[in-house]
Amino acid sequence: MQKFGGTSVADIDRIRNAARRVRAGMAAGERICVVLSAMAGTTNQLVAWSEAAAECRNDPAVPGPGAPFDWAEYDRVVATGEEITVGLMALVLQAQGVPARSFTGAEAGLRTDEAHGKARIEAIDAGPLRDCLARGTVAVVTGFQGLAADGRVATLGRGGSDTSAVALAAALGAERCDIFTDVDGVYTTDPRIVARARKLDRITYEEMLEMASLGAKVLQTRSVALAMAHNVRVQVLSSFDDAPGTLVCSEDEIMEQQIVSGIAYSRDEARITVAQVNDRPGVAAAIFGPLARANINVDMIVQSVSRDGRSANLTFTVARSELARAMAELEEHRTAVGFDHLLADDNVAKVSVIGVGMRSHAGVAHTMFETLAAKGINIQAISTSEIKVSVLVAEEYTELAIRMLHTAYGLDRA
Amino acid sequence: MQKFGGTSVADIDRIRNAARRVRAGMAAGERICVVLSAMAGTTNQLVAWSEAAAECRNDPAVPGPGAPFDWAEYDRVVATGEEITVGLMALVLQAQGVPARSFTGAEAGLRTDEAHGKARIEAIDAGPLRDCLARGTVAVVTGFQGLAADGRVATLGRGGSDTSAVALAAALGAERCDIFTDVDGVYTTDPRIVARARKLDRITYEEMLEMASLGAKVLQTRSVALAMAHNVRVQVLSSFDDAPGTLVCSEDEIMEQQIVSGIAYSRDEARITVAQVNDRPGVAAAIFGPLARANINVDMIVQSVSRDGRSANLTFTVARSELARAMAELEEHRTAVGFDHLLADDNVAKVSVIGVGMRSHAGVAHTMFETLAAKGINIQAISTSEIKVSVLVAEEYTELAIRMLHTAYGLDRA
Repeated sequence: MQKFGGTSVADIDRIRNAARRVRAGMAAGERICVVLSAMAGTTNQLVAWSEAAAECRNDPAVPGPGAPFDWAEYDRVVATGEEITVGLMALVLQAQGVPARSFTGAEAGLRTDEAHGKARIEAIDAGPLRDCLARGTVAVVTGFQGLAADGRVATLGRGGSDTSAVALAAALGAERCDIFTDVDGVYTTDPRIVARARKLDRITYEEMLEMASLGAKVLQTRSVALAMAHNVRVQVLSSFDDAPGTLVCSEDEIMEQQIVSGIAYSRDEARITVAQVNDRPGVAAAIFGPLARANINVDMIVQSVSRDGRSANLTFTVARSELARAMAELEEHRTAVGFDHLLADDNVAKVSVIGVGMRSHAGVAHTMFETLAAKGINIQAISTSEIKVSVLVAEEYTELAIRMLHTAYGLDRA
Repeated sequence: MQKFGGTSVADIDRIRNAARRVRAGMAAGERICVVLSAMAGTTNQLVAWSEAAAECRNDPAVPGPGAPFDWAEYDRVVATGEEITVGLMALVLQAQGVPARSFTGAEAGLRTDEAHGKARIEAIDAGPLRDCLARGTVAVVTGFQGLAADGRVATLGRGGSDTSAVALAAALGAERCDIFTDVDGVYTTDPRIVARARKLDRITYEEMLEMASLGAKVLQTRSVALAMAHNVRVQVLSSFDDAPGTLVCSEDEIMEQQIVSGIAYSRDEARITVAQVNDRPGVAAAIFGPLARANINVDMIVQSVSRDGRSANLTFTVARSELARAMAELEEHRTAVGFDHLLADDNVAKVSVIGVGMRSHAGVAHTMFETLAAKGINIQAISTSEIKVSVLVAEEYTELAIRMLHTAYGLDRA
């Protein structure tokens, strides 16, 4: 399985370059299924048109009232981007003497639920693709789309092409799913911040999942979770050079596991403190219930006793873009919750150290706190899982914290 | 049935403008099926990409030999243009409070043969569209495409959206097929040449068919032939103003038929004379056989006895773009045909007067010859059918001939 992202198929020359990878695989005797994104920029254009088309809902000149946004029609528009690239790739491969055939999601047997615009894959009937591959023909499949139970095309949501590739790899029992993109692998941390960041040869599913959900943008969380569930080995590599990439695989494929594999960060954070909450059973539910109903995700949560000893302060983080909405929701429920005032701060960032090795090694969190303390970086909140420790710090310390931790955990390239 | 061409759906504002027509029809209690082209320019872009993708066939760096051009993959790419506009139109209509649903050719039950790139419609299962219309929902269908017998999308060839619209109108038993385009109807002749050209209220299928095949570009010949075969009334009108257009209908719907309805012309003509052919039975077959096998269409044919009385000259016309190919074919068969030399002239144009009235009125051809002779315009070849007379003249006389004939047949606007 080979998957090429939007920058790797952005024009005919790049599609030809991608076809080179397919030819190399064929020459090595592999059976190859290719999954493609739309040309870079195309999906954004299609989304913008769909939104503009629905906009006249608010035009007073039209009789209205407009219907709610029809995600099935959005899908019809947005799914075309991948239909273009698969046809072009098939033409390029054929012109190079490689038998190839394009498949839409529906033709490839990829069935989804009816949640248009963000559909989930329900089943894959891999028969058509198997037949194609058995004939020695490259199957070129649209990423990002499938056939919904209502008989119409459905898209999987942004970044869904990685998910398509992993799901098809699982259905076909592919040896590996190679994700060709514009970076050449997964790094110990963002190389733009730490020049000595190292490319990882291998990383476990669990670590990759944490990296993805904590801000590293190489792979979509959803595709990693799917790969882990179906034990599909995923290789991330550049379509523009021939260096080996990073293999995302299960723990038992990694001989010498580092304690810490990488450091992730996210600036998309905002902190809210609900001050002097009347501390009684059910108060957390009173606070977080309205936020959940408003579809606002809450992340790190810290409860502390306030100075007067009779009430508590509750601090938590939300996505920065949700801050205003979250504050409004809380103000609206001020009486029901019973708090004195709210504090908000969007000048914060989350820095996380990740590694499956910490399951068996103590002291990882301690090293983190010590390293940050040595530079006078105050920790505003902490959250942990079995394989990661995250801290919230003032945003201006983000780069410093990452660099210090990268060195402290021995991740710097020699 | 309403069909909108590429310039009428070229951007969101124009799609909104087109939606206004649909709203008007709905307000009048009609059930409306809409057929759309791709945004102006999109299909050209998709065709260019497909051609570029197949080009590396000639790249010496690739192992090749490349396969022949795969029209099914071309269709997969090129068919996306209409899938975008139907989704956008459905979103626009819904936003304006008009229930609407998009259909691909396959979803609309339009089945074609397997001649990808230039498929012919084989059958239409109008059930899905009927159900949609019966619910009071506007059906918005992709023009130009259908589902081939091989289970893949097929396109009908350039201009195929008019054909889709007429075929669907026939299958649905629609009262009329309105073709919205960037001109406001069918004129007695090209208004760029004759300022006093009149817009026709009505024109018969037969006349429209001659007009289309003789150079008037308002409707595709193929769609007119289909409308005639299924007796679908077609109205050509502008999507940019509200003036009534031209109705293409059967003769019995036209009360007072003019003798001549219009004057068409084509500059895409070249004349070939095969001089001093050995005049024997079978010589015409010897000349036209090779041309037919080379897929070169021959139009006006004139045979004349040459000066020596023992051999003949054979003059005929071909499309200007085919002239070089035609000359090469004839040279190749010089011995088999037995001629002295070839003459070619691409400085010619065909001017035609058209009217079903000439079936019952004599003197139409006579008026034509007299009018041209009065201005000293030499006629190089003549061809006639029941409802038209065409003459070949030197190209520089084209405009003069058209203007004189327009006046002579009483077609000038008062």
